[in-house]
Amino acid sequence: MSKKNKLRIIPLGGLGEVGKNMMAYEFGNDIIVVDAGIMFPKNDMLGVDYIIPDYEYLKKKAKRVLGLFITHGHEDHIGAIQHFIEDIPVPIYATPLTRGLIEAKLHRNGAQHRAQFKTVQAGDTTKVGPFTVEYFHVSHSIPDAVGMGITTPAGLVIHMSDFKFDHTPVDGWPTDFAKLSEFSDRGVDLLLSDSTNAERPGWTPSEMVIGPAFEKVLAEAPGRVIIATFASLISRVQQVADAAAKTGRKMALAGTSMVDNVKIARQMDYLDIPDELLIPIDQAQKMQNHKVVIMCTGSQGEPSSIVGRLSTGTNRQFGLKQGDTVVLSSHPIPGNEETISKTINRLLRQGATVIHDGIAPIHVSGHAAQEEQKLLINLVRPKHFMSIHGELRQLKRHAEIAQELGIPAENTVVVENGQVVELVGKKVMLGERIPGDYVFVTGESIGDIDYDVMRERSQLARNGILIIDISIDKLTRRLRHDPEIITRGFVSPEDAKPLIPEVRKLVLRMVHEDGFDDEKDIINAVKSYLHQQTKRRPMVFVTLSKA
Amino acid sequence: MSKKNKLRIIPLGGLGEVGKNMMAYEFGNDIIVVDAGIMFPKNDMLGVDYIIPDYEYLKKKAKRVLGLFITHGHEDHIGAIQHFIEDIPVPIYATPLTRGLIEAKLHRNGAQHRAQFKTVQAGDTTKVGPFTVEYFHVSHSIPDAVGMGITTPAGLVIHMSDFKFDHTPVDGWPTDFAKLSEFSDRGVDLLLSDSTNAERPGWTPSEMVIGPAFEKVLAEAPGRVIIATFASLISRVQQVADAAAKTGRKMALAGTSMVDNVKIARQMDYLDIPDELLIPIDQAQKMQNHKVVIMCTGSQGEPSSIVGRLSTGTNRQFGLKQGDTVVLSSHPIPGNEETISKTINRLLRQGATVIHDGIAPIHVSGHAAQEEQKLLINLVRPKHFMSIHGELRQLKRHAEIAQELGIPAENTVVVENGQVVELVGKKVMLGERIPGDYVFVTGESIGDIDYDVMRERSQLARNGILIIDISIDKLTRRLRHDPEIITRGFVSPEDAKPLIPEVRKLVLRMVHEDGFDDEKDIINAVKSYLHQQTKRRPMVFVTLSKA
Repeated sequence: MSKKNKLRIIPLGGLGEVGKNMMAYEFGNDIIVVDAGIMFPKNDMLGVDYIIPDYEYLKKKAKRVLGLFITHGHEDHIGAIQHFIEDIPVPIYATPLTRGLIEAKLHRNGAQHRAQFKTVQAGDTTKVGPFTVEYFHVSHSIPDAVGMGITTPAGLVIHMSDFKFDHTPVDGWPTDFAKLSEFSDRGVDLLLSDSTNAERPGWTPSEMVIGPAFEKVLAEAPGRVIIATFASLISRVQQVADAAAKTGRKMALAGTSMVDNVKIARQMDYLDIPDELLIPIDQAQKMQNHKVVIMCTGSQGEPSSIVGRLSTGTNRQFGLKQGDTVVLSSHPIPGNEETISKTINRLLRQGATVIHDGIAPIHVSGHAAQEEQKLLINLVRPKHFMSIHGELRQLKRHAEIAQELGIPAENTVVVENGQVVELVGKKVMLGERIPGDYVFVTGESIGDIDYDVMRERSQLARNGILIIDISIDKLTRRLRHDPEIITRGFVSPEDAKPLIPEVRKLVLRMVHEDGFDDEKDIINAVKSYLHQQTKRRPMVFVTLSKA
Repeated sequence: MSKKNKLRIIPLGGLGEVGKNMMAYEFGNDIIVVDAGIMFPKNDMLGVDYIIPDYEYLKKKAKRVLGLFITHGHEDHIGAIQHFIEDIPVPIYATPLTRGLIEAKLHRNGAQHRAQFKTVQAGDTTKVGPFTVEYFHVSHSIPDAVGMGITTPAGLVIHMSDFKFDHTPVDGWPTDFAKLSEFSDRGVDLLLSDSTNAERPGWTPSEMVIGPAFEKVLAEAPGRVIIATFASLISRVQQVADAAAKTGRKMALAGTSMVDNVKIARQMDYLDIPDELLIPIDQAQKMQNHKVVIMCTGSQGEPSSIVGRLSTGTNRQFGLKQGDTVVLSSHPIPGNEETISKTINRLLRQGATVIHDGIAPIHVSGHAAQEEQKLLINLVRPKHFMSIHGELRQLKRHAEIAQELGIPAENTVVVENGQVVELVGKKVMLGERIPGDYVFVTGESIGDIDYDVMRERSQLARNGILIIDISIDKLTRRLRHDPEIITRGFVSPEDAKPLIPEVRKLVLRMVHEDGFDDEKDIINAVKSYLHQQTKRRPMVFVTLSKA
């Protein structure tokens, strides 16, 4: 089979969810990229702000990249754009709202001048090089989300990013069944589909169910209602605004990204909120409590978010009042459960009432559950199926679902990021493995922390450190002064008291009596003494000067 | 009201679940203690093995403590006994199986000689000092669990530890409804009840539903089945043994605590497993794969457990084989979700099939859900209600449930550990606050790590460290050699390369040109240089010798 008819599908992003944050399609000498998002660090990734996919492979072929195609405006799909376009300055294809959200984010980070946009609409078709990209609307928890039909001489591939089959979405615009059927008629060679909820049976409830739940909360709460969600969950803002209007409350917004996004979405008519409903946060402070609802960030308990700061009493603009009701309108992202629980307990301790998705229907998933995943497969009837957007556990489950619907096992693909999948001669097969992993971002630095650094941090954190400064007289070969010892994160000062003099004695004896070859001898002796005494293994450093 | 008629109820254990790991009852000069368990460290408690309650308050009154009363044999109720009896050597009142499990644990830790036991049975009554303790059977995920009616001149208190109303428990012994009704007839002044599932509507399914699920897995799995659960989940072992017998598999056990506990439970007839069903793990290795089921530890993905080691290919006794099915028979403990997912993905990567409670009914909770909590309250009809065994979020919800059933709000109590609750003149009120928090245990050391040490560890981990060794000639006031610089956990060596010479230059300039007063000046200058360059704040140490 000639290389000319081979489409290479390349999911990037290390051990993250497959193809969620970035996916490349390579045909011949040409490449298009779908999405450039961030991942949030796991609990053991110490000191990391966020993670972006390692797209070194694409950097090397930067001149061959024809465009960056964005499916929707959530952080895990757009958050890495500012870094990506610095390395690979290509046009960004996005729907109007998605473009607006990207622009706002780039602006906040001072990177707006780098971006070159091509605004597209669901229903449009873009032709670049050998790729024909057809955008079609999908419903998700943000308006203006699209899936893409990607046609090359190798065949037709459907890239189904985050979606659900919501018959009554907030924006009234359901997933485009007709287009999916049309693709099916044409014959789909490969369907890639969102596996997030592959372990969840049934059908994800419509966003509509949240409306009455919000109305109930707003009608019954005796005081202010503070509703936290993701700043990019635009549909949720509409629902709160509607509920506020119905229950006679005014709505204020808190948090830069929340304020920005609502402004853009309103300007573009993706949000229908009358001017008189919105009030500045300062004004909200002066109104009667039961006339106010505040929308803000922090539904995951993030310490620097509005709710995080409210819970610790460190929010500058406003604080909690007795009688406040705080609503966390999201589901815990796996790994965040502990932080969220801590935040809920802190809010309760301050006298607030807390409502979360475990006790009231104030959140639904934005992703298709098993029955919807099945419907998509049966609508599209693809020849091959590839699970994307999930960890191995969800991907495998999704592939099993496809098999249950009659797609032969050998036509289903489960891979991890970095594994190239090839569509060639209307068959799908595994290609090479591209090197690549996570790229950690901290502060303004990208990629200067690797797994070795993280391992060292974890060692430092496990048992702390002990630094011994030794100064030896060259002539007498005796210590010029007692060894100085500094510890951090080892044991409490009180408990260190009996240990430190013993360590000093040990060093003295080694220098004056037993002798030693170099620092390592001292380090090993101190380590083994400390382990014997405390069963711990702090990192030990010796600085030795001879004069 | 005279002090003579006052019962003080004292939950201990810092920010942990209220009264779960330890609760003291103090009447006049006498004290009894219920349970002495451990907590597992949160993700941000770096380098901590486990946590025990701070019982300093009891230590000071050690001579007045009359006994330690244990409700059941789970780690979070018995795990701290070895430490407790060292400080407060009192008799331990426990049912036969609970005693057996405690003895085995003490034996593994070489502390068996310290323990003095009084074996009791559900239905028994113990009188010590002013306390009359009546034990009654409760069903839970371990046999031989009890609740306690505690009568003092102040009134009757029911201490309802972990329980569920399982009508078809594995051991055929449901919670003692009759005794609860009898208490109700006598008049219960205060009910303390398990709030673990206070946010879960409905009724927790019976342990019975797991049986058919296990049978299905064992019948259908093509190869070996490896089932992981907690070593103390004795009922689960019985269910697997029954399923193994029905499906023609032999059962092997892996993991010291699992082997120990099964041995004890069988000896005492709490487990009914015929000899011929059990085989040593070595023999299991030689049998046909589909004839074997292995029970082991590691359902929470703990790295040092059998399943943790299987997932990383580091288990010595046996490894994973193609075609293995691994069953994680437990529910993620909040905070463990990430570790468990990582473990599942690793097992899948090695070709195993993984079954967890998200995709098959192979686990049920051991705790009462809302409808059972309501039933208990209506059976007992207590005058006062206190939520225990939960964080604030569950405690508040449980108190609301009690209020919905007609207990006046002023008669319901929600407190955190350390807050004394008093029953006096048949009324419940808040007493003093006892100082006390978590006690961190690492290796063999208890309590020598405090929050300050933890904070230092977190600082070390966040940005790493940089150590600068400077040696200055006293006479010339010049450096005797170039500053030596060590970094750990800061940036990768490659990225440190350009930085380190700059730091050296900076130090040189300070010593030779600008001058400095002491180490702090250098530390501050280096810190601010590094922050400017990298936006990070590693901990900087300077060891300075003048000779």
